[in-house]
Order: sequence, then C-alpha cells, then structure tokens
Amino acid sequence: MKKIEHIGIAVKNLEDSNKLFSKLFGKDHYKTEVVESEGVKTSFFKVGKNKIELLEATNEESPIAKFIEKKGEGVHHIAFDVKDINTEVERLKKEDFVVLNDTPKKGADNKLVVFLHPKSTNGVLIELCQEIKK
Amino acid sequence: MKKIEHIGIAVKNLEDSNKLFSKLFGKDHYKTEVVESEGVKTSFFKVGKNKIELLEATNEESPIAKFIEKKGEGVHHIAFDVKDINTEVERLKKEDFVVLNDTPKKGADNKLVVFLHPKSTNGVLIELCQEIKK
Repeated sequence: MKKIEHIGIAVKNLEDSNKLFSKLFGKDHYKTEVVESEGVKTSFFKVGKNKIELLEATNEESPIAKFIEKKGEGVHHIAFDVKDINTEVERLKKEDFVVLNDTPKKGADNKLVVFLHPKSTNGVLIELCQEIKK
Repeated sequence: MKKIEHIGIAVKNLEDSNKLFSKLFGKDHYKTEVVESEGVKTSFFKVGKNKIELLEATNEESPIAKFIEKKGEGVHHIAFDVKDINTEVERLKKEDFVVLNDTPKKGADNKLVVFLHPKSTNGVLIELCQEIKK
C-alpha cells in the first residue's frame, strides 16, 4: 500500500458540507462526481497528496443513506492506494481478510476499487484502489 | 493543512490489532507510545508519508474507552499536519469551528495537538498537529 489515497466522509447535504470543508481547508473542492451504481454523489478536496471525499446518498437504498441512518454523519471509509489491486486482494484473502467484492469494480475518480469488510478490520471499512490507466 | 498526518483508530486490544494491521500493511508497527494524560496506549504504522495510529484505552475513563462503548471499534479521528498550529486555530475559530482545547497540548509522536469538536465538522473528530522542534 503506497499511501492513504483518500478518506470518505458520509454527509447528509453535499452542498452544505462542501462549504464547511472549504472553510476547514481554506480552499474549495476541485471536482464532483456521481457514481450512480453506488448511489452516491461525491466531491473531492486535496490536502497535500491525499484527498478527502465527501459522499451524499442519491437514493434511500444507497449504502451512504444506510450508514447515516445507523451511525450518523462521519468517516465512512479509508482508501489505500495500491500498485496492483488483484495481487493485493489475493494476498489479503490469504491473510483471512473478508473481501466484499472479489472482482475490482469501477469507483469514483477513475479508480478500480475493492472493499474489505469492517468485521475483519477492527470496524474500519477499507477500500483498496488502483488508478485506471487511460 | 499540509497532508493527512495520521488516522487514529480505536481498538479494544492493541496487541491483537497490531497483528491484524501488520497483515493488512504487510509490515509491522514501528513504535508504541503511552500518553498517560490522554489515557491511551498507541502504536504507529507507516503507509507512504501517512501514518495509522492504533489507540487502546489504558483506563475506563479514557476517551477511547468511552468511544468504543458508544460506537464500537473504528476510526476515532483524522489528524492533519499544519505548519503553525496557533495561526490555524485562530483562523478556524473565526470560521466558527468549535475548538476543544484553545492551547495546543502535547500529544503522541512528539506533536502539539488541538482537536476540533465533531459537531462542527460533520461528525468527524479532527486533530490539528504540528511537530515539536527539538
């Protein structure tokens, strides 16, 4: 794992939270993106070489809607940048981590992503991500 | 804010979690430290230029013990590296963020730290930290 690629934060209202985090970081988000397959609208802030991703649910069945209903707003996941996502998934499965999707899927920000179940990682939802080469 | 300095994760048993995160990152933690004033025993892992800090309570009154009782194990705080913590605190107070300690206090890993109340930051406990020059 090369670095923390981003931290995903579940928010109720993306517009309000964009304003809040703009004040926090002293600069605006640099993009927004809807990932319809995941039921999320996202915005991204850069902090050095790391990013903060804000996530708003686009429908009631969205994992973000369910997360907020259960736990309230807050940190939803941590994403680590990996060199080769398939090799990393194989390695982690051998170490008994529970992988939520064996086959990497397309996430926000031009990434292939795999999630690890929080029950195998101390309650932390972990995303592995690898940039899709164009 | 220069980068994500570390992510703090509340754990029930530091020894068990050190083993778990060693498997996750494919390498061991590089140090442990007790911060008696905060009621925590910590261990640190490096992931590129970022760190993961695991936090175990050293007594029942520890904020970590209370956090786990309320929310279970998981992400406890996000720490951002800042150049000048006093300037940053003044700036954020003017922006209506709620500062938990006006005067920076000594945290783990040779840092001066200030926390922002999660009620003013979308449910995320945010730590500002600045390295203490020796």
